[in-house]
Amino acid sequence: MHLLPHIGSLAAGARNAITDVAGVTVGHCTVAHGELQTGVSVVRPHGGDPYRDKVPAAAVVLNGFGKSVGLVQVEELGVLETPIALTNTYSVSAVAQAQIRQCIAANPEAGRGLPTVNPLVFECNDGFLSDIQRMAITPQHYVDAHAACGAEVEQGAVGAGRGMSCFGLKGGIGSASRRAATGHTVGALVLANFGKLPQLTVDGHPVGRRLAARIAERDAGPERGSIILLLATDAPLDARQLRRVALRAGAGLARTGSVFGHGSGDIALAFSSAYTVPHLAQRGMPAVAMLHEDSMDHLFQAAADCCEQSILHALWHARPVTGRDGHGREALPDLLAGWTTLAEARPA
Amino acid sequence: MHLLPHIGSLAAGARNAITDVAGVTVGHCTVAHGELQTGVSVVRPHGGDPYRDKVPAAAVVLNGFGKSVGLVQVEELGVLETPIALTNTYSVSAVAQAQIRQCIAANPEAGRGLPTVNPLVFECNDGFLSDIQRMAITPQHYVDAHAACGAEVEQGAVGAGRGMSCFGLKGGIGSASRRAATGHTVGALVLANFGKLPQLTVDGHPVGRRLAARIAERDAGPERGSIILLLATDAPLDARQLRRVALRAGAGLARTGSVFGHGSGDIALAFSSAYTVPHLAQRGMPAVAMLHEDSMDHLFQAAADCCEQSILHALWHARPVTGRDGHGREALPDLLAGWTTLAEARPA
Amino acid sequence: MHLLPHIGSLAAGARNAITDVAGVTVGHCTVAHGELQTGVSVVRPHGGDPYRDKVPAAAVVLNGFGKSVGLVQVEELGVLETPIALTNTYSVSAVAQAQIRQCIAANPEAGRGLPTVNPLVFECNDGFLSDIQRMAITPQHYVDAHAACGAEVEQGAVGAGRGMSCFGLKGGIGSASRRAATGHTVGALVLANFGKLPQLTVDGHPVGRRLAARIAERDAGPERGSIILLLATDAPLDARQLRRVALRAGAGLARTGSVFGHGSGDIALAFSSAYTVPHLAQRGMPAVAMLHEDSMDHLFQAAADCCEQSILHALWHARPVTGRDGHGREALPDLLAGWTTLAEARPA
Amino acid sequence: MHLLPHIGSLAAGARNAITDVAGVTVGHCTVAHGELQTGVSVVRPHGGDPYRDKVPAAAVVLNGFGKSVGLVQVEELGVLETPIALTNTYSVSAVAQAQIRQCIAANPEAGRGLPTVNPLVFECNDGFLSDIQRMAITPQHYVDAHAACGAEVEQGAVGAGRGMSCFGLKGGIGSASRRAATGHTVGALVLANFGKLPQLTVDGHPVGRRLAARIAERDAGPERGSIILLLATDAPLDARQLRRVALRAGAGLARTGSVFGHGSGDIALAFSSAYTVPHLAQRGMPAVAMLHEDSMDHLFQAAADCCEQSILHALWHARPVTGRDGHGREALPDLLAGWTTLAEARPA
Repeated sequence: MHLLPHIGSLAAGARNAITDVAGVTVGHCTVAHGELQTGVSVVRPHGGDPYRDKVPAAAVVLNGFGKSVGLVQVEELGVLETPIALTNTYSVSAVAQAQIRQCIAANPEAGRGLPTVNPLVFECNDGFLSDIQRMAITPQHYVDAHAACGAEVEQGAVGAGRGMSCFGLKGGIGSASRRAATGHTVGALVLANFGKLPQLTVDGHPVGRRLAARIAERDAGPERGSIILLLATDAPLDARQLRRVALRAGAGLARTGSVFGHGSGDIALAFSSAYTVPHLAQRGMPAVAMLHEDSMDHLFQAAADCCEQSILHALWHARPVTGRDGHGREALPDLLAGWTTLAEARPA
Repeated sequence: MHLLPHIGSLAAGARNAITDVAGVTVGHCTVAHGELQTGVSVVRPHGGDPYRDKVPAAAVVLNGFGKSVGLVQVEELGVLETPIALTNTYSVSAVAQAQIRQCIAANPEAGRGLPTVNPLVFECNDGFLSDIQRMAITPQHYVDAHAACGAEVEQGAVGAGRGMSCFGLKGGIGSASRRAATGHTVGALVLANFGKLPQLTVDGHPVGRRLAARIAERDAGPERGSIILLLATDAPLDARQLRRVALRAGAGLARTGSVFGHGSGDIALAFSSAYTVPHLAQRGMPAVAMLHEDSMDHLFQAAADCCEQSILHALWHARPVTGRDGHGREALPDLLAGWTTLAEARPA
Repeated sequence: MHLLPHIGSLAAGARNAITDVAGVTVGHCTVAHGELQTGVSVVRPHGGDPYRDKVPAAAVVLNGFGKSVGLVQVEELGVLETPIALTNTYSVSAVAQAQIRQCIAANPEAGRGLPTVNPLVFECNDGFLSDIQRMAITPQHYVDAHAACGAEVEQGAVGAGRGMSCFGLKGGIGSASRRAATGHTVGALVLANFGKLPQLTVDGHPVGRRLAARIAERDAGPERGSIILLLATDAPLDARQLRRVALRAGAGLARTGSVFGHGSGDIALAFSSAYTVPHLAQRGMPAVAMLHEDSMDHLFQAAADCCEQSILHALWHARPVTGRDGHGREALPDLLAGWTTLAEARPA
Repeated sequence: MHLLPHIGSLAAGARNAITDVAGVTVGHCTVAHGELQTGVSVVRPHGGDPYRDKVPAAAVVLNGFGKSVGLVQVEELGVLETPIALTNTYSVSAVAQAQIRQCIAANPEAGRGLPTVNPLVFECNDGFLSDIQRMAITPQHYVDAHAACGAEVEQGAVGAGRGMSCFGLKGGIGSASRRAATGHTVGALVLANFGKLPQLTVDGHPVGRRLAARIAERDAGPERGSIILLLATDAPLDARQLRRVALRAGAGLARTGSVFGHGSGDIALAFSSAYTVPHLAQRGMPAVAMLHEDSMDHLFQAAADCCEQSILHALWHARPVTGRDGHGREALPDLLAGWTTLAEARPA
């Protein structure tokens, strides 16, 4: 794609997407009519039922102005037990209900003879482009996004990303992957809805400063955005190690110009596909040799790089969207159409 | 009430309830028909709109096997901005939606020109007595509980406490208060749904061990309970100090026999009624002299004592309930009917 | 010992001490002459060099009014890499230096070709009985305590416990163990230096209230104490799980009457002896099947019980000590000499 | 200075140093002879005694491979009560002892009638250039650095920065300041000892990649560095808010190329000079109107920018140093001598 840089020196996986981590799939359900520009995206960590085969995971809250649900239990138990869902702020409840119903359908004793299931829903506020107050997302949208999961990752203004803004431009879903020097793959998927245009930095180039000097920012108020950064890896890591990896999402995020704004819910979650934890003790715990800590730097670099790359992908794949009250967001590629190099961001 | 001890040496407030902290009110909406034994309880920190006049608050997760929502933002910003709601695990979403709608009704720009509101809903699993899978709670139940708020606190098997179990007996809502030596009041309200009968300790007496030897525990499986402990005080405290107070709920809880069980969502939240934080910066921040740290011990003692007392109140006020699949829970006072002193718990 | 209760229903190990966890040893070096009543205690997690064979560990700060060192790295990496040392507040530095020198002696590249070692020293303030300002502890005291490590655990006014006070009485070192229902052993060792006499609760009996009514408390000021609670287990647990176990030390502590006082540094650390983490990646990570989470309740109960028991052991083993400025502390057993049952604490 | 960029769009204070925050002073004591290239640096938050007039503060551990002391109590109480000291990893103890003695000298009851003082010492590992195992720093070095405190901030290879390396080049002490849009000043001082050369990014330019292609990195092993980032502001903030500010140091750090390496102790601490907390409750707590949260973004931007700037200052002010075993570090300005623009980092 025109001027899209490759971040860092590590190679991407075959799809340059989170689904390069074997078993991970992604699906979207997009709502796009008039005042409603929103949706649901789902990341499935594996093809089975995460309630029965739990996935080691950990999250880091970079800035907690957010309404995501499920993190208390993830922190305590170090596993996730539903697919990961993304949606808009006021639709978290509908999607959480859908996750509960989905789990009960497959596990009729969940909440009776077995523990209640822990919904895991992340959100950003797409209220600039979409009429968030209508709480238009229903449980069915989650079901549809879940059913659509596959290895191909559509990016940009799709699913939960449909109404999201990023650096005052059209944002949304982005994904990328990197091969770490350990031989493991790290993949990322972001829901990018943060930042003010002058902050936008692309591979070190102050692109936002340059653009801001030429186009007016329509949204002059304080940042009300957020970003959710999901990381997957096939490296065998425990929850403590995954938390370390998740924090490095912040390094990639910072490089794009973010300072983890006050009004932004900036949350990163990392999970490992290398093993699962059985719901029932009788099934026996797997004996796993975790990655030695000395190898973590390789994963850290991969995590930071593919988060930065994912944010760029969200911007590059996004198409312009007009929504609520005629609010619109332009797409970065359109603004860069006349550029021949990103170095133009910094005129001599 | 028969054999109910007064915990500690501090005096209780006039009502011996959380509403002894001026401005705090409590309301319930109870659902009690057949398979459904559940409800919603609401604690309003003041009579106004917490979205506009935010309340300093902090929470501590003693054990995070729980699905409460809103804690990420409370931790980041140190305030709550809705009334505090309590309900069953699978009804969190319905109540959160009700809180969002309530906030939008009063603040039409919430989520548009103003930030989205952060719902704050705590939960325990009442699935033993109630058919939790029916997700029977609707937003209207929250509205009704909110409308019912007043200074009188009904306790026992009411509101969110309707279907809760505690130490294998009937649990539910309990409340108490203490006057700290600083002159401040500390009040607590608990949703008690935790523990196995042999653990039950009443003011140091191993009552549960004694009862367990005489009656069969109906629920022989692992603990699937939880407890939510809410603390209010009129002492001027910032979020860091409130976090310290909230942690002492754990001391009161431990004295009743809990070891913060693995399957239990044990969460404490403390708030101060001494000042509020305006939503809009233009309204100006209040100049507050916080309590000097050297006085905290007085609040710690009061907090631990009134949490322990609240749990006992939940047990003492509870009446027997029969619900789903004929499951029933007896009330502790009935089991103690023939006792003349709690010292009988430990026969010579 | 006279009136010493057995806490809970679990059986103790053979020694009823932390050394019932195989491989764990304990040693003391006591300084007791006139104004100096202090010392060093050491817990070795295994017989080797923890720098080379790191020990999975996690800590919980119940109240952070404390100056212990080493916790930042323990939290990040989930291992300890020195023996655990205990001493007085102003001697932490001397002991940390001793640990560094010990590590360098065995690993000449530590801090050159290999990473620097992380000292792990816990402390309480024994300034009431000992002239803490003289910083009388030297690195040699640590060396001596380390050399004295063995399976027999001397308790009471020894080692770091020499000058410690507990509930206004003589405190110090206590240890205990419990066999969990999983077949694993949980052991505890505490350095007990906390509490005011009226708070003292012995197996539910308000012993302190009773004693306080009869004897004057010499130290009328605010609590300036602390307690360090060390837990060892042979259960295979990762750092996240060990953190959960460590938190339950707080439940045992609370049952003795503590509300985690403001001026108290109340810190718990748990480690597992089930496996080690090699310093060098080349040696390969062990493949370990961790304990299933559903079994954690058994460890929680054992942890809480043996912490409570350890505190009682510290009190029961302590002998009266007179130190700085003629300050003295009586021993609890002496005060209970005329009692025939702890139930006398609560006169009818 | 040649090619040194100004980071961001905010103006610097008069000195472009942390001492632009009124009352803050900085002093160094440098040890530079042969195998010993090390030292101590001190930041005094105000001209008085911080034990009596405590300073609101909070820290964030970005990566906890570090041995700094004092953070447990800072987190609990939200204040610091000594000057802030920086030194090498194995000299933390000596400096902590010096801080204790300094406090006792001024407050003879500290540790007797008054609480023990909490030393606050940060460290990085300068073992590449200096013989860290000799533990050459004595308490007197701290005393000298403290006595040298003033408003002028010497930068580069001085004080604790004497032996530090950064991106495989000579690192050390750097400082900078920014005026936030709120009218407040934010200042930073870093001890920079982290990173591998290929990571070095200067204002977005991949300078390290370019240099690494031309010069061999002498230190080919894994990163063993660290960075301490201190932030001061005259904005009235409580500890929770200061923690938020401290986290933004990570954004500035990430922009220089760091991914918070595994072996790095990356710790940020922020303090406010706007008010103090009296040691004795009798002196009364100040009534402070904290900054409204909506203004935090201005401080966040200033914090990130002046941390990035401080790291660059450390590199630009550093002079080449040769030390232990003939190890040497070159200075970045020397390597850039022939450059005319940083854009040369990325050849067309």
